[in-house]
Amino acid sequence: MTQSFEMLREAIERTVQFDSDGLVPAIAQQYDTGEVLMMAWMNKEALEETVSSGKVCYWSRSRQALWRKGETSGQIQVLQDVIVDCDGDTLLLKVKQTGVACHTGRRTCFFRRLQKDGEVSETLPVTISPTKLYSG
Amino acid sequence: MTQSFEMLREAIERTVQFDSDGLVPAIAQQYDTGEVLMMAWMNKEALEETVSSGKVCYWSRSRQALWRKGETSGQIQVLQDVIVDCDGDTLLLKVKQTGVACHTGRRTCFFRRLQKDGEVSETLPVTISPTKLYSG
Repeated sequence: MTQSFEMLREAIERTVQFDSDGLVPAIAQQYDTGEVLMMAWMNKEALEETVSSGKVCYWSRSRQALWRKGETSGQIQVLQDVIVDCDGDTLLLKVKQTGVACHTGRRTCFFRRLQKDGEVSETLPVTISPTKLYSG
Repeated sequence: MTQSFEMLREAIERTVQFDSDGLVPAIAQQYDTGEVLMMAWMNKEALEETVSSGKVCYWSRSRQALWRKGETSGQIQVLQDVIVDCDGDTLLLKVKQTGVACHTGRRTCFFRRLQKDGEVSETLPVTISPTKLYSG
């Protein structure tokens, strides 16, 4: 293990508060446009890998495994910055998103507007067909 | 109960997936600049109140009580939009933030940059003294 990886580990230990499942929520934001792309979870290993590799890797709670974003679909997130919040229990990832962040083929996962009168309307078009995304 | 509140309730029931504690994470983003301000949690009641009142109300996990953002500090969040993500398990709140979102007196809660070499540096200044924020 290199000295700088050791120092990264210590910094994570000191700065980030993982919950009782060992996870922390991570918000991905497109670094230049400010679009909030998605929210997912990281464990210590996923965060270490993300910072050292420069490509975003989450922890999949459903699969209970590291989730290297874009490994299947090609829609990777190149890390620009990791910002830890005041309490250390949420991360903001500034990323360069290739293509689309959402498995539905939309640019971001946030596309269902909930209105006061109970109407739910879609705010984003599908830009890549999901069939195409996962035909790998 | 008005008919429109009833319809809002049904829409929330249909669209939002609360976790086993009855909570859903909510990301607050300044509607015009795109700044990610903070992340906190909502239960059903907090979400219903937020959408119907137009002012953001979270659920405080530490105090186990509704948390009307800005009630003490005056730094309220006026709701512009609620966007539900693809899986229904995360909310994006577009808000108009009065003053600062963070209890440290910084504009946003995300101000500690974690670098690859383990350096942690501050990215935002304190713009309102915390003493002033909570001097009631």
